[in-house]
Amino acid sequence: MTQDDLNNQLKWLFENAMSGISVDCVAFAYQEERLKVLCLRYRNTDIWSLPGGLVFKHESLHQSAFRTLQERTGLDSIYLKQFQTFGEVERANIKEVMSRLVPPFAMEYFPNRSISVGYYALVNHREVIFTQDILTDLTAWHDIEELPAMIFDHVQIINTAVKSLKAQFDHLPLSYHLLPKKFTIGELQKLHEEVLGEKLERSNFQKKILSTAILERIDERKIGGAYKSPYLYRFKREKYEAWVNQVF
Amino acid sequence: MTQDDLNNQLKWLFENAMSGISVDCVAFAYQEERLKVLCLRYRNTDIWSLPGGLVFKHESLHQSAFRTLQERTGLDSIYLKQFQTFGEVERANIKEVMSRLVPPFAMEYFPNRSISVGYYALVNHREVIFTQDILTDLTAWHDIEELPAMIFDHVQIINTAVKSLKAQFDHLPLSYHLLPKKFTIGELQKLHEEVLGEKLERSNFQKKILSTAILERIDERKIGGAYKSPYLYRFKREKYEAWVNQVF
Repeated sequence: MTQDDLNNQLKWLFENAMSGISVDCVAFAYQEERLKVLCLRYRNTDIWSLPGGLVFKHESLHQSAFRTLQERTGLDSIYLKQFQTFGEVERANIKEVMSRLVPPFAMEYFPNRSISVGYYALVNHREVIFTQDILTDLTAWHDIEELPAMIFDHVQIINTAVKSLKAQFDHLPLSYHLLPKKFTIGELQKLHEEVLGEKLERSNFQKKILSTAILERIDERKIGGAYKSPYLYRFKREKYEAWVNQVF
Repeated sequence: MTQDDLNNQLKWLFENAMSGISVDCVAFAYQEERLKVLCLRYRNTDIWSLPGGLVFKHESLHQSAFRTLQERTGLDSIYLKQFQTFGEVERANIKEVMSRLVPPFAMEYFPNRSISVGYYALVNHREVIFTQDILTDLTAWHDIEELPAMIFDHVQIINTAVKSLKAQFDHLPLSYHLLPKKFTIGELQKLHEEVLGEKLERSNFQKKILSTAILERIDERKIGGAYKSPYLYRFKREKYEAWVNQVF
């Protein structure tokens, strides 16, 4: 890409977008029994960022967040929830940071201050196909407790998203989005323990989960474990959707 | 105020504020056993609005919401919580509505589209002193179930705020902000029933509330009721503050 190409692309972008507002997406996945978050690395740097971007004049905030993540992950269906808008005056030292990441001629496009609307997403990492863009060269899942160096207030945005997820996870079947199609009750419990950050008592958990009637046991068992092969379960799609419609 | 004065005031306002973003405040009070919301009426019209406004370049979103309400109500201390940001493309037909509310020369200042960050506030209406501004001539408490004609998506913003308050009220001692300093358990129960929209069983409610140890019984009884004078209670300030610090 030539300097002219980049200039034209940025010019078009800023002309067609709202000024001083962006969305940032905290995309969670559950991988190797850990809660992970999707991060992007700026080209030729060690600086990471959340996927996010400008809001086009013709799109809603939600559409902007969805587009941003869809472009990155190739997913057509993403569970997306707005959790907080970040509007401290000093939250993003845009001019200072961007001067290290883009050529000097591009600096004129960036505003002094930007407000960011935070969305968290729940993503099945098994279905993701990463795509890069003109500013980043790597997309990766990071453990929420081992985050790399991130721009602006992105660490704070992630921590706030984790807190919101935790507050909503307890009574909502959000695990639907993070697990494989079939899973054991033990695997479901491990996910809840990871998100909530605490051990749960096995029989209470099982009783509570099964009482919601949102799961169904299928006629198949998990093979290969050390113990007696446990039954596999899956979400009843219509029950899950009824729940979504009731809550949102 | 002359046309020049108004023009200068609007010019100054839009020059010093961020473009395309505003805050809107849903200020709740509990009056005559009903949940009320603060609404403003535009001068010489029957069109009502939430208190809200532009965000100055030098202030955070939270400061902007606080300033807006402080100017209206004279309060120095306001419980304020961001609950959602409204960003649909067609949410506010700004040009169309404002052309009916401000003189033609002022129209150039208004943007085509604006995103609004919603805050809800809990206000003790006994402490409020209303102040008007250049565009409005009346401030009043409206029952949330009998709202007047409101501009833009303000009815939706109020309904969303009610939903958020309801979701958070059950397990949080937010009633601290809405009740007089001293109250009976019966009065506290009535407030919870009004917010949650359902009857609560008296002995369960009493047991649950007293188990939080956030209230203290004072050596005084409510006088003048039809029944045996019940004890009065108040919030333990240090317990309430410890709770706020833990949750937020």
